[in-house]
Amino acid sequence: MVTEPWKSSTVVESEGRMVMLDKPMGACARAFLNLFVLLTEIVLLGVLTVTLFWVFHYEGGVAWTNDIKRQFNLHFILMIVGLIFLNGQAILTYRLFGCCRRIYAKLTHAFLFLSAASCVAIGFYVAFEANERVHKGAHFYSLHSWLAIVTCGLFIMQLLVGLVSFLILLCCDGATASFRAALVPVHATFGLIIFVLGSATTLTGFMQAARARLNGQNQNADYRDYPEQGWILNALSGGVALLIILLPLVARNNIRGGRAVFTTSGSVAAVDMS
Amino acid sequence: MVTEPWKSSTVVESEGRMVMLDKPMGACARAFLNLFVLLTEIVLLGVLTVTLFWVFHYEGGVAWTNDIKRQFNLHFILMIVGLIFLNGQAILTYRLFGCCRRIYAKLTHAFLFLSAASCVAIGFYVAFEANERVHKGAHFYSLHSWLAIVTCGLFIMQLLVGLVSFLILLCCDGATASFRAALVPVHATFGLIIFVLGSATTLTGFMQAARARLNGQNQNADYRDYPEQGWILNALSGGVALLIILLPLVARNNIRGGRAVFTTSGSVAAVDMS
Repeated sequence: MVTEPWKSSTVVESEGRMVMLDKPMGACARAFLNLFVLLTEIVLLGVLTVTLFWVFHYEGGVAWTNDIKRQFNLHFILMIVGLIFLNGQAILTYRLFGCCRRIYAKLTHAFLFLSAASCVAIGFYVAFEANERVHKGAHFYSLHSWLAIVTCGLFIMQLLVGLVSFLILLCCDGATASFRAALVPVHATFGLIIFVLGSATTLTGFMQAARARLNGQNQNADYRDYPEQGWILNALSGGVALLIILLPLVARNNIRGGRAVFTTSGSVAAVDMS
Repeated sequence: MVTEPWKSSTVVESEGRMVMLDKPMGACARAFLNLFVLLTEIVLLGVLTVTLFWVFHYEGGVAWTNDIKRQFNLHFILMIVGLIFLNGQAILTYRLFGCCRRIYAKLTHAFLFLSAASCVAIGFYVAFEANERVHKGAHFYSLHSWLAIVTCGLFIMQLLVGLVSFLILLCCDGATASFRAALVPVHATFGLIIFVLGSATTLTGFMQAARARLNGQNQNADYRDYPEQGWILNALSGGVALLIILLPLVARNNIRGGRAVFTTSGSVAAVDMS
């Protein structure tokens, strides 16, 4: 069955469990959902673009080795691309792929999430390697790094559980249907938790970058003089904060009318109302 | 009608809108909800206690004037008390007051929220005043302060809208019932958004405090030497991150079975499934 994000639903009890019957969503609710999805996409793209502009225009671009500042620049970009942009797109997949067969949406979601994980893994390595050379052995001392470890740990678990449960277990479709249905709300909730934790980690990272780069020493600008880089970093943090609000709202499909999270057969789908 | 948080609900359509019929929650779901509420309370109390310990044991306590470091200490405490602890308790009121008449829960919620707002207002003033003397006119340059302005703006709006809509409008109960019912999900959603934004602001504040206090200069400890204060700040940030996860989960009443957000009459309540 095709998931149609513009349809809202009626919830009834059937055989002891809650099921959701699709019915057309009102024009107003549908317009609202589309508007919020569009807004989320604009903010996601905006955060990515402004980060690239900031790194290449003000911070001297990126490098793989031998230039610690540019290595950290690469860390910033990879983390924004992985943890915010691609992770956000992966979450939005089910809101944007209403037109196609569900397996295509699933594969796109998996591909985006795998790409995000690759960026995050390389971004993690880059920061570790640069930090090794600049601080010689002092790792994971800051709250930014602690939050990062928790976020990445959850990210990896989510990836493994998701791949095994929603793709590999499809080989025995019927036998695993109820298990997969039960797992969907957990998976969706943890997806949003990871996004919010990742955003919080990003904000502490921005704060760390602002303090390290805009310290008024060695020809650096001073954060307290309201330099352009300061405005950009603050605007970036505003964008990330906006995503903390927008993405959970949009991910809850019908905004006001509940959410079809797992399609079974015909016009009936199990419902998550948590 | 008394709201009973341990009751889950059946949702049916009645007269064109979704309504929720209470039915007893399963013992397992009820135990889970209680466990999560208990855990949230422990983390809320933990964050408050550890902040007080950190400020009084390591940072020299608080002061109202003439000592900039201790003024910022007061800022830390007031913000943790207001934005995290009391705000969290206000959100939890409806999970904890299942036993009493709804108006008592409402008044407790309003009282906690007003106390939180007072702490936040004084905390804001203390930081501004201390900053005025240390930086002479450079205000609101950091992303921490930008996030703080957004959070406090939403906090004040939420307070005013809540007081007018859910207490003052009670004077004409019948005429405003449908308006108040429609506003409840918006109010609840913004309450969680404010809590999450406040927590994100807190994390950037911790990051700022760590960078300013643990800089290895003037007999200060160095963050990179893993000092005790560093561990404490990181643990505090872990606690706040945990609250970002726990509070939205717990605030959604039945964890899996939807949420009764506004009681009308008899055993029927309007439902928010957003």
